[in-house]
Amino acid sequence: MELLKKLCNIPGTSGAEKAVTDFLLQFINKEKKDWKQEPEIWVGEGFQDNLVLIFGKPKVAFYAHLDTVGYTVRYDNYVIPIGGTDGRTGDSLVFEKEGKTLETRLVCEEENDLYLVDAHLPITPGTTLTYKPNFILENEYIKSPYLDDRLGVWALLQMAAEAENLALVFTTYEEHGGGAAGYIARLLFEKHKVSKSIITDVTWVTNGVHFGKGPAISLRDSRIPRKAFVDEIRQLAKKAGIPFQLEVESHGRSDGKEIQNLPYPIDWVFVGPPTENPHTALETVHKTDVDLFVKLLLVLARI
Amino acid sequence: MELLKKLCNIPGTSGAEKAVTDFLLQFINKEKKDWKQEPEIWVGEGFQDNLVLIFGKPKVAFYAHLDTVGYTVRYDNYVIPIGGTDGRTGDSLVFEKEGKTLETRLVCEEENDLYLVDAHLPITPGTTLTYKPNFILENEYIKSPYLDDRLGVWALLQMAAEAENLALVFTTYEEHGGGAAGYIARLLFEKHKVSKSIITDVTWVTNGVHFGKGPAISLRDSRIPRKAFVDEIRQLAKKAGIPFQLEVESHGRSDGKEIQNLPYPIDWVFVGPPTENPHTALETVHKTDVDLFVKLLLVLARI
Amino acid sequence: MELLKKLCNIPGTSGAEKAVTDFLLQFINKEKKDWKQEPEIWVGEGFQDNLVLIFGKPKVAFYAHLDTVGYTVRYDNYVIPIGGTDGRTGDSLVFEKEGKTLETRLVCEEENDLYLVDAHLPITPGTTLTYKPNFILENEYIKSPYLDDRLGVWALLQMAAEAENLALVFTTYEEHGGGAAGYIARLLFEKHKVSKSIITDVTWVTNGVHFGKGPAISLRDSRIPRKAFVDEIRQLAKKAGIPFQLEVESHGRSDGKEIQNLPYPIDWVFVGPPTENPHTALETVHKTDVDLFVKLLLVLARI
Repeated sequence: MELLKKLCNIPGTSGAEKAVTDFLLQFINKEKKDWKQEPEIWVGEGFQDNLVLIFGKPKVAFYAHLDTVGYTVRYDNYVIPIGGTDGRTGDSLVFEKEGKTLETRLVCEEENDLYLVDAHLPITPGTTLTYKPNFILENEYIKSPYLDDRLGVWALLQMAAEAENLALVFTTYEEHGGGAAGYIARLLFEKHKVSKSIITDVTWVTNGVHFGKGPAISLRDSRIPRKAFVDEIRQLAKKAGIPFQLEVESHGRSDGKEIQNLPYPIDWVFVGPPTENPHTALETVHKTDVDLFVKLLLVLARI
Repeated sequence: MELLKKLCNIPGTSGAEKAVTDFLLQFINKEKKDWKQEPEIWVGEGFQDNLVLIFGKPKVAFYAHLDTVGYTVRYDNYVIPIGGTDGRTGDSLVFEKEGKTLETRLVCEEENDLYLVDAHLPITPGTTLTYKPNFILENEYIKSPYLDDRLGVWALLQMAAEAENLALVFTTYEEHGGGAAGYIARLLFEKHKVSKSIITDVTWVTNGVHFGKGPAISLRDSRIPRKAFVDEIRQLAKKAGIPFQLEVESHGRSDGKEIQNLPYPIDWVFVGPPTENPHTALETVHKTDVDLFVKLLLVLARI
Repeated sequence: MELLKKLCNIPGTSGAEKAVTDFLLQFINKEKKDWKQEPEIWVGEGFQDNLVLIFGKPKVAFYAHLDTVGYTVRYDNYVIPIGGTDGRTGDSLVFEKEGKTLETRLVCEEENDLYLVDAHLPITPGTTLTYKPNFILENEYIKSPYLDDRLGVWALLQMAAEAENLALVFTTYEEHGGGAAGYIARLLFEKHKVSKSIITDVTWVTNGVHFGKGPAISLRDSRIPRKAFVDEIRQLAKKAGIPFQLEVESHGRSDGKEIQNLPYPIDWVFVGPPTENPHTALETVHKTDVDLFVKLLLVLARI
């Protein structure tokens, strides 16, 4: 869990993911010699801040997003959200100033639906604020800001050692506006004919999806993946005997939406453990679900 | 009208269109020997559940969508809409269970804006519900669920016998999220330089568009097609002496939106007969409009 | 300012930009012999109503949009907006009828949130209405309908005389639905590897952006440009000593959104002077901001 903790602690809101990309690249370059197959790495010039690992001749791509929600300072210390941030008065937020990490607190003016930060000095407009790191292992739970989707990033890294003929895709901009997953999906389709995508991200505990019963395979969120492909994934999971839950939602969206709307015939499905308190300063996930999530991904890797 | 009835009766919500695609393919393979020109068929692997007929060297493409609105069962027999379904308490809905077609009824909890189905036993989450077939010919009207857009599909099939140098495109996902028409439009542009698209779908009776006065040519819905192309289509219809109506709407959208937003220079226009009760269990269209709709398409085929 | 006045006076709502394109083409063909480098012109067949000037081997592209907001006549002289038009009761609107320009006035039925025009005779449904030309130079201000974005178009033309190794892009559909900037951005990327885009358009006077303090460089609107690229642009402006303002917004969007969502790795940033009364019959901009806007663009041309 040390790696997951490190990942959760790196600031990287949509549009400003470079520190996470750099961390990953360093980690990968250190570890890859011990992997069964050394991947081709797509990174840097021509890839914006995305990162892709190509193992062999990929037949399937797994996506996790690097970016997180947060806030941008507007004027007079008022802030506006990046993605669907769900901050509360009193949340500790951090930001960079001249190379130093400073801290402030969120204040919600409920009557005006405005958010600002409690600071004696004005913070420069455009400054990005993120939840203060706070990684907690507690009984059966992992709690931290930014399990969404550093947990998916971490899970994909668990796949790397044994990976063959697949792509691991680390995308940007998922939380705010999109525009990255589609680019990588197009490249993978054009260069390697990859038409199968597994979106790995956290989802929600609801009245139909519970803690400890395994990762959810989503039958739909605001978008509906193609039935034929979802059925294939369900069959694989069932055959392998991995416990999982079926999710049916009318809202929410993932990098799957990007891929769906691309003018290329690429299938997608969403897989991920449920969380409580999404987009808050302390997202929560159950260890059993995390464990089964990785097991399921290893099964789907052999699609 | 037997063919239209059959088409309206096949369940096929967005993401689950395969049964309609299969029916079409079978129909086409049986009929094509009698057509003036035998089309190339794009279907199956690499096309998801879309189907395209390429006649000769196409200069224009006609689009109709295969998918319909409906419901997905969530948890505890509550349901969520697929597309903009406009169901009412008491509507008969059908679904598949272990190869059998079962029936249930819709209940609207108006106070909570929630929909559920009236069933003694829980229906498996993820099950798709569609309006029970109910095709009625009554005086000058055709009434049925899913005239939207099985009528467009049927109309395109009326064009097949005489088709030359055009494409007939049967798309998926129009009602929910999109993602298919754009793919086909890109392929047609790249392979055949097709830059003219006619979207055939039903529209609405309004204070400006009436039953029995011919199909509507839409000057705009939520999207605005390029004036130069719409003017060309209007001229062709006028010259041929086919009665039609001009539609001007601020809302609604069609596969034209997909094509508009594609990064390729492809024009589109929407053509279709007006209906009453859109997206309900009994959509209504006027026979005269249907007749003139097909006549207009045959004129536009010679663009 | 004569050229800007002429540009502001040409009707050209989204989808009906051809008159502006034609005016530009005529202007360019007349002037280009005096330019340092004669551009390749992309216009006409295959470009819809967009226009692009390619100078040398472009390393960066500057975008301004040709289209404006306005109204479409629906039925019974009621009208619906094109883009986010902000008309008021009494606004003078013009339209074409049989080659003549006619005038009418806007009436807002506030209780129903409906807009109509005050005309004795019905105006043909589908007719496009635009604000009556009204270009005013007043002290330090320029006032006119459609400074958005004819000012950007004008500014790009100021760059043409000295332009080398860049593209000037005049797009359509920015105000309503999009679909053009993405196409040109894709072509520029595929043909010339252009991955840097400067969106030139007007923005808003707010509590953080003021008249007379220079053009705004936007750190975000509803979309967030990539930090690395925005930082590069800020550095260039700073180094050149051009006064500018930093903008941080949660809403609004530009052709940058199109480019962001394209499945190609193209960076974008928004640059433009602030205006008051956006999308009304009399938008206002400060002359100092216009002057510094052009100066900034000339600096960014040497990126």
